[in-house]
Amino acid sequence: MKISNPLSLPIFVSLTLFANMYSAAQNANAAKPRQVKPTLVAYEKYIDDKMDAHLKEFIELVSIPSISSIPSNKPDVAKAGAWIVNKLKDIGMTTAQLIPTNGNPVVYGSWNKAPGKPTVLIYGHYDVQPVKESEWNNPPFSPVLKDGKIFGRGASDDKSGVMTTIWAVEAMLNKDGKLPVNVKFMFEGDEEIGSPYFKAFLEKNKELLQADFALNADDGQYDENIPAMTLSLRGSVQLQFTVKTANIDAHSGQFGGKTPNAVLAMSQIIGSLYDKLGNVAVEGFYDKVVPVTSAQKETIKKIPYDPAKDMALLGTTAETGDPAYSPLERTWYRPTLEIVGMQGGYTAAEGHSNIIPGNAMARITCRLVNNQTGPEIIDLIVKHINKHCPVGATVTYQFKPGFASPVTLPADTKEYKYVSDVLSEIYGKQPLQLASGGSVGAMLYIKEILGLLAYPLGFELADEKWHASNEFFRVSSIRKGQLVYCNYLQHLADEESKLKK
Amino acid sequence: MKISNPLSLPIFVSLTLFANMYSAAQNANAAKPRQVKPTLVAYEKYIDDKMDAHLKEFIELVSIPSISSIPSNKPDVAKAGAWIVNKLKDIGMTTAQLIPTNGNPVVYGSWNKAPGKPTVLIYGHYDVQPVKESEWNNPPFSPVLKDGKIFGRGASDDKSGVMTTIWAVEAMLNKDGKLPVNVKFMFEGDEEIGSPYFKAFLEKNKELLQADFALNADDGQYDENIPAMTLSLRGSVQLQFTVKTANIDAHSGQFGGKTPNAVLAMSQIIGSLYDKLGNVAVEGFYDKVVPVTSAQKETIKKIPYDPAKDMALLGTTAETGDPAYSPLERTWYRPTLEIVGMQGGYTAAEGHSNIIPGNAMARITCRLVNNQTGPEIIDLIVKHINKHCPVGATVTYQFKPGFASPVTLPADTKEYKYVSDVLSEIYGKQPLQLASGGSVGAMLYIKEILGLLAYPLGFELADEKWHASNEFFRVSSIRKGQLVYCNYLQHLADEESKLKK
Repeated sequence: MKISNPLSLPIFVSLTLFANMYSAAQNANAAKPRQVKPTLVAYEKYIDDKMDAHLKEFIELVSIPSISSIPSNKPDVAKAGAWIVNKLKDIGMTTAQLIPTNGNPVVYGSWNKAPGKPTVLIYGHYDVQPVKESEWNNPPFSPVLKDGKIFGRGASDDKSGVMTTIWAVEAMLNKDGKLPVNVKFMFEGDEEIGSPYFKAFLEKNKELLQADFALNADDGQYDENIPAMTLSLRGSVQLQFTVKTANIDAHSGQFGGKTPNAVLAMSQIIGSLYDKLGNVAVEGFYDKVVPVTSAQKETIKKIPYDPAKDMALLGTTAETGDPAYSPLERTWYRPTLEIVGMQGGYTAAEGHSNIIPGNAMARITCRLVNNQTGPEIIDLIVKHINKHCPVGATVTYQFKPGFASPVTLPADTKEYKYVSDVLSEIYGKQPLQLASGGSVGAMLYIKEILGLLAYPLGFELADEKWHASNEFFRVSSIRKGQLVYCNYLQHLADEESKLKK
Repeated sequence: MKISNPLSLPIFVSLTLFANMYSAAQNANAAKPRQVKPTLVAYEKYIDDKMDAHLKEFIELVSIPSISSIPSNKPDVAKAGAWIVNKLKDIGMTTAQLIPTNGNPVVYGSWNKAPGKPTVLIYGHYDVQPVKESEWNNPPFSPVLKDGKIFGRGASDDKSGVMTTIWAVEAMLNKDGKLPVNVKFMFEGDEEIGSPYFKAFLEKNKELLQADFALNADDGQYDENIPAMTLSLRGSVQLQFTVKTANIDAHSGQFGGKTPNAVLAMSQIIGSLYDKLGNVAVEGFYDKVVPVTSAQKETIKKIPYDPAKDMALLGTTAETGDPAYSPLERTWYRPTLEIVGMQGGYTAAEGHSNIIPGNAMARITCRLVNNQTGPEIIDLIVKHINKHCPVGATVTYQFKPGFASPVTLPADTKEYKYVSDVLSEIYGKQPLQLASGGSVGAMLYIKEILGLLAYPLGFELADEKWHASNEFFRVSSIRKGQLVYCNYLQHLADEESKLKK
């Protein structure tokens, strides 16, 4: 997923005035006249009428710091889960409950009053990434609405997916008193730590979760005007390690010249992880990587990729990596090893301490492809670090429980076509077929255990600063997402009925 | 300065009981019977009688977080200075005042009622290093007395130097109503940031500071039983720099494979600063370094240096550095470049964030020798970093105002002999002649501007964790330091009188 053109609502608008202003702005900004099936007009009105109330709800949910990677936030994750269960009850789902796992609970909600009709299982996650609070323009858990965007941690990734799908079901239940198909919601609370407990959850609740179709709401579109379907996701795995050279920091004068420095040792280890081209220098790292196929190269050719736009988004001045592969090949089809954080010695904002640091910590995230698995890759990295650990330094590892497997979805299925049809209708053009460098661990488990291909149908956009500071979600996407989901549920019912006849 | 044997007072003792218990323990532990001149017996009694009161005072002073490198602690530095001025007034100094500088004020106190007698200028500093609070067993500015040690930031470096010298003068004034020589105290508030304002202070107050002898109380002994005089100090200079690869942190899935990583770039820069032997790889860094002389090698031969003890002190498992030089040669007579801190990306204690860091920060402290100067060395480092900065990264520098010049003191002067005589008498053996890898910026300025050789006379010991967490000072050194200073002032008066006759 790449750059999008931000919706240019010019000013901070009050919630009360928002809905009408929004509609006007939307109409003024729309590149093409929006096509809405006559059957969807009623839902559209409901969606617009309820926008203020929904934004208030959204701000409530985004306010809850449901950070899964910080143990002390566990009560907040539970609070967010309970909030969503209440919302599911409010809109009239048949059942709504928290299902315990070995980690955080899964929010489960079901509407099953359409016997003989297909059942759709919708995946999303309500946990969020941690924050670097000082870098936020507003506190990350005190969301603000500004210029048509809601700023807050998790607003895009993935509380947008959770709430957009719930509101779509709410609109249909409200207008029709029923849904055209059966719906099961399944919102995970440990996605951001690699879904370590999700496989066991699916195995234990296999019967409850039976469905005919599955969708992944933790995904996005190419930009505001170009739809897309992500058919390939990289996997991911995480590692934390500490380099120790001494029990205490040493006086740099008293001991400098004969005492190992943990930050230097860490820097040398980090440097050793890469070759000069930027490839990962860990022995065996690429052993299970399949060369980029001609089909993948064809997929990339269709993407209007603009490196300058991509770099402007981040403020980078160069694209790095092995030039033997194009940037999208590297991001979509090649594995990576990133240092996501490193700290050692005196690093307070102010001051200067003349010490030789005795320890340093670093965190790694790898993105995996093809048949690479988390445990194998971690094993290779640990062997590499142990081998390259400088004299006087020792390394200890903090292993993370979860990892996400890479996953690929076919484009020649009816499941693909149903999603593609709806996106084509609402956006007025066929969706691009994308790969993603990102990871959603649950996808492979849903395929393996439930036998379902969870096709992507989400409305995040690439500039929405997922995982970074000042994450936001577009109000326009809240609206569009609901329309698409209403359309999808109706379309699915219609098409499956035809097949039955 | 090396390892010492901690005074083994077994338990936490109350201040009320301390003096008597201390004396008993001291006598039990003394390796040899302590020699005290008959003239010193009265001072000794006063010192022991006042120990409880002095410990209370010391805890008061150490409680003030006079961290010079943190701007927001400026009021605390001022508070510590004012506290010392009050103490100087209390003991009966002729004048006591804060003298403003372009940085923190210098505490100045003078007793000038011995006309015809020499004047001694005593240097120390009352500012301290910053702290990593979480690593302390007790809060660093809530000092505790335990096992004959006072734990707190600055207890050893250098509030011990400030207070030991003041209490010695207090003892003499109290017992005799006068001092045998004239005394001027000059306690700096910016030593830990490299004394950037001290040269201008000396130039401006040159007349006021006129003296015949100078001592540096910010120094130590070899261990509790072996005296030492540090005749050579390395200089030091500091630098902070930031590597930037992007305006924001990037999602490691979305952008990983084509986006530069600031922590990797920083690691590569840090790695480039050293060769394989651990020498500094910055071009020109050693240009002004004089080869280790045979006299210096002779000095080192006399030192009972035990690498195992030194390593046990820190918990290191190896001595590192170019084996072409012995460990003490590297620490005393060779310059160093240490990374004192480095941070980039997500490094909170808990959690894991899948980002590509957009920036990383590092701090450097260099120790200088011979004719190396701070500005020249910084210039060479900046050139090196700019040259080795990877594609996609930019570096910005935060230059620090101060630097300390290396300084060497001769051993064939009467100034040296007076100090040496007194140490020999109290310890029962000649002081070792040491060099130090540490730095006291003011020493060169005192030599250049006041024309005085400030010989070391301090009681810090090498295991007291200067600059590190859980810094402490020994109560036994408070006692011994006062005795030595009383002895020195009397000895100086006696010897100078003889010369006049």
